[in-house]
Amino acid sequence: MSFLISFEGIEGCGKTTQLKLAAQFLRKSNVPVLTTEEPGGTPLGKKIRKLLLNRWSFEICAEAEILLFLAARAQHIREVLRPALDRGEWILCDRFSDATMVYQGIVRGIETTWIRQLDDFATSSLKPDLTFLFDLPAEKGLHRAMQRMTGIPENAREDRFEQEGLKFHQKIREGYLSLARQEPDRFRVLNADADIASISREVCRHLSIFRSQHS
Amino acid sequence: MSFLISFEGIEGCGKTTQLKLAAQFLRKSNVPVLTTEEPGGTPLGKKIRKLLLNRWSFEICAEAEILLFLAARAQHIREVLRPALDRGEWILCDRFSDATMVYQGIVRGIETTWIRQLDDFATSSLKPDLTFLFDLPAEKGLHRAMQRMTGIPENAREDRFEQEGLKFHQKIREGYLSLARQEPDRFRVLNADADIASISREVCRHLSIFRSQHS
Repeated sequence: MSFLISFEGIEGCGKTTQLKLAAQFLRKSNVPVLTTEEPGGTPLGKKIRKLLLNRWSFEICAEAEILLFLAARAQHIREVLRPALDRGEWILCDRFSDATMVYQGIVRGIETTWIRQLDDFATSSLKPDLTFLFDLPAEKGLHRAMQRMTGIPENAREDRFEQEGLKFHQKIREGYLSLARQEPDRFRVLNADADIASISREVCRHLSIFRSQHS
Repeated sequence: MSFLISFEGIEGCGKTTQLKLAAQFLRKSNVPVLTTEEPGGTPLGKKIRKLLLNRWSFEICAEAEILLFLAARAQHIREVLRPALDRGEWILCDRFSDATMVYQGIVRGIETTWIRQLDDFATSSLKPDLTFLFDLPAEKGLHRAMQRMTGIPENAREDRFEQEGLKFHQKIREGYLSLARQEPDRFRVLNADADIASISREVCRHLSIFRSQHS
């Protein structure tokens, strides 16, 4: 038995921390686990990620951006995810197709039906079996992300939170929640505005239920 | 008046040399010309080209490859081609959508209807107004390409010409000829197995006819 489980949410929602804790929990339960991330999960993906992060030094249009993300995903599927699924592993993946739907669809305005077609090509129609959405008010996610970036308290950098940035994060949050409503069987929406340990207990509880349903 | 003119053909067909000569000819006739190339025509494209050339050091699957080529093209269109067309320039482009159809379709086995959809997205449906196909028997193209790569006479490296490599080049040649048959109005198929000057005269003659037809 092998599964693809994705961890999604706005910046600062804590998904990466929760993914690590979930991997520890599964390993303790003797589940073979692979943790990975998009777009950086392969050597090609790491190079693409670097291109996307260095975009201040050259232009990347919306169309090129989604094609780069999907090139990384196509390679990730064939080099990492498919082989791991074939070995019977559980894959915990930091961001996957839902992130593309939300960021490229809502932020870049690319038509969602077309994103699904592109994503189907990149993934050969591989879909997550389970997706955790760490839901958080946009302001809290932004504050956490800013703190992480700068290492200084949030109130000292309050002026940097432009209204535009907050609206952007709100749209992303709403985009994720809308996807979760469309596929309630796949999504587990968790309140990410709580302490790490209690969120992790929720994640582990869902993983245990999922496991018992599929054994 | 502005036009997009692409130069296509197998490796070693002489298209890059002919593109330069065509640009000289047009400039002498006071036509504003931009020469460019795919995938390297933008800063992003140059980085993508480097990724594709360094593929020996990491894996790039067929799906990732076409997505990378099209990311470069999407950026090329928006950063270089569209602005040049808006300025009224004639663009001479070394390889364009036909190369993707032939290489990714025939060599990588990606379905051609899907390549057209992907390419339409990348180009926002921008098509060449005129395409020169420099047609050459595959063996001759291979010999020229090998000479260029190694700088030593072809017979000294004859053993390197694997049958597989030749079949590959023959498929590419046939793929290009098939595209030319489908769109005879757009394509000018030239015999590239002749001396540079006489091929260039043919190219210039076609450019003059094209110009008079569109003035």
